[in-house]
Amino acid sequence: MERTRTAADLEFPPLYCPLEPATNPAAPRVERRAVAWLDESGLWADARERAKIIGSRGADFFARFAPGADDDRLLATALWVYWGFAFHDGRCDTGHFSIRPAEFVPMAARVQRALECPAPAARGDAYAVALQDIGARFRRLGTPVQFQRFVAAHRAWLTGVMWQVSFQARRHMPDLEDYVTMRLHSAGGAPTYAMLEIAHGAEVPAAEMDAPAVRALTEMAILTAALDDDRHSFAREVDVGRTDQNIYTVLLDQNGGDVRTAVRTAARLRDRVFLRFLRLRERTRPGLGEAGRAYLDGLAYGIRGNAEWGLRTPRRPDPDEPSAPVVWAERPADPGDEPVPLPSISWWWDL
Amino acid sequence: MERTRTAADLEFPPLYCPLEPATNPAAPRVERRAVAWLDESGLWADARERAKIIGSRGADFFARFAPGADDDRLLATALWVYWGFAFHDGRCDTGHFSIRPAEFVPMAARVQRALECPAPAARGDAYAVALQDIGARFRRLGTPVQFQRFVAAHRAWLTGVMWQVSFQARRHMPDLEDYVTMRLHSAGGAPTYAMLEIAHGAEVPAAEMDAPAVRALTEMAILTAALDDDRHSFAREVDVGRTDQNIYTVLLDQNGGDVRTAVRTAARLRDRVFLRFLRLRERTRPGLGEAGRAYLDGLAYGIRGNAEWGLRTPRRPDPDEPSAPVVWAERPADPGDEPVPLPSISWWWDL
Repeated sequence: MERTRTAADLEFPPLYCPLEPATNPAAPRVERRAVAWLDESGLWADARERAKIIGSRGADFFARFAPGADDDRLLATALWVYWGFAFHDGRCDTGHFSIRPAEFVPMAARVQRALECPAPAARGDAYAVALQDIGARFRRLGTPVQFQRFVAAHRAWLTGVMWQVSFQARRHMPDLEDYVTMRLHSAGGAPTYAMLEIAHGAEVPAAEMDAPAVRALTEMAILTAALDDDRHSFAREVDVGRTDQNIYTVLLDQNGGDVRTAVRTAARLRDRVFLRFLRLRERTRPGLGEAGRAYLDGLAYGIRGNAEWGLRTPRRPDPDEPSAPVVWAERPADPGDEPVPLPSISWWWDL
Repeated sequence: MERTRTAADLEFPPLYCPLEPATNPAAPRVERRAVAWLDESGLWADARERAKIIGSRGADFFARFAPGADDDRLLATALWVYWGFAFHDGRCDTGHFSIRPAEFVPMAARVQRALECPAPAARGDAYAVALQDIGARFRRLGTPVQFQRFVAAHRAWLTGVMWQVSFQARRHMPDLEDYVTMRLHSAGGAPTYAMLEIAHGAEVPAAEMDAPAVRALTEMAILTAALDDDRHSFAREVDVGRTDQNIYTVLLDQNGGDVRTAVRTAARLRDRVFLRFLRLRERTRPGLGEAGRAYLDGLAYGIRGNAEWGLRTPRRPDPDEPSAPVVWAERPADPGDEPVPLPSISWWWDL
């Protein structure tokens, strides 16, 4: 792949996302409280790192997922978003741990345990200490069931990152099946969506949450957002001259380096998954109770919010660069409803 | 540590386990069905491996956990026990993957996905294919909630093994806090106990299963059984001249190599945890419904059954060697109810 290519050359088609956008009016004041927390957190070492973490705009991000959450619930969930971006940047995607699975795995396992334990077990790691504080908020605000769902989702995410770190260590480019499966976990979608319930308050009954259709809808929402993230970060990384494992580099590795085809294939895959989400949601939603319907609505707000946040919000090298107005696609790149031929996800079309 | 020491020199005190033993009368016929399944599974390469997997006596093992399960439920859960021992022996504790986290993690992640997916996603790995078949049985026999609980527990186990493999790769001997936390996950107790519900049939309400006391009781049952397993495998490994990371080598690494002290410290730790289990169970059980009480009873059967199985059942170098009659301790090595001073578990005493 040519390293001199710029994002403008890639001709990404507009994103297709006919979902209602929303945002929580508490976001600005919650952001101020979050910044105060971050300043006490020890998560940043210098002004540049501080600006980067705050620049992830976690409060703005989760305000789009949970437009109706009250201030304390939006704060707690937004704190995890900031934390997740900081952990991702500092330990998963780049940095010492990001290519050393034998060190990443124990570190991540200790971080996970700090979340699970009500007692201090953070062993002096600032990330673990901060996560334990967030976990304590989730325990207070959420039910034990909601908390355990978040814990399980958080572990699923970390195992996905362990997978990614293992591939990075071996400089191994996964095939599409492996990549999609890994990304379902490594993207952080599972804990992000598991916070919807904590933000909303109402607990989704287990029989609804664990029903195959709701599980599949959650996975589709994760993959749609993950592929949208890949698009944003690929555009960003191509401009700065580095590209990690993502849907484009995976497809380029398979197709011999044809960028236009990779961009088109990725857009069609994303829209097939997203349309499946829309169709199955429509069919599933009426059978759920109020909390279950709110959860599915949250998934939809999340897909839309994640896409808007990714298109508008910095995390660019120059955060003062104005973001372009978003133009949305009027129709999907692929309107089909046939299963995507990847065994890991093709069962979504059987439901 | 002297490598010439034999198990007989170690003077293990008898185990303290005043819990009612039980076994499922269907075990012998379920074992025959399990062996037939194993013979089709592709999990063994030669007669020695076959004998070793069958010698784990998975049907006998889980018959002690679920004395009331019907044949089909005992079969499905027993199959996972055989599978788990085979996977443990072939890929976790020894073999190519056991010291290569960058390869173990993707392999284990694919195996986990094969379990999660109703569609074939096993990619030709005999372990993944076999696990997918077991998963299909759990889906048929269990509720979606029970199935997702098993999936989450299975992932927790595999992350524990990832941790263990990472330490093995670095020849790193963990300290006690890390070891206990790792063992809570790596021992396989989480998926084993998550099968209790599938064996029983009745679903434990989420509010009961995720209540802190029931979570803690599950963890205590895991750690008690894991420490008992350490005792059995240490005795076995000392005799064959190798010892892996276990509670004894961890304590020896801390105390400078005094075996008698390590054996006594391990016994006291195990009994403190076990007594805490008994006391909290007594307090928690009356507040639960029928399914929740059956789950707690299953944890107790499991602790006792695991100890008996470990004391009696082969997995010795020579399976025909007769096992000694079990002598149980009349009192615990440590009757105290003060918290074990390890932050990862000390909160069990706050409940």
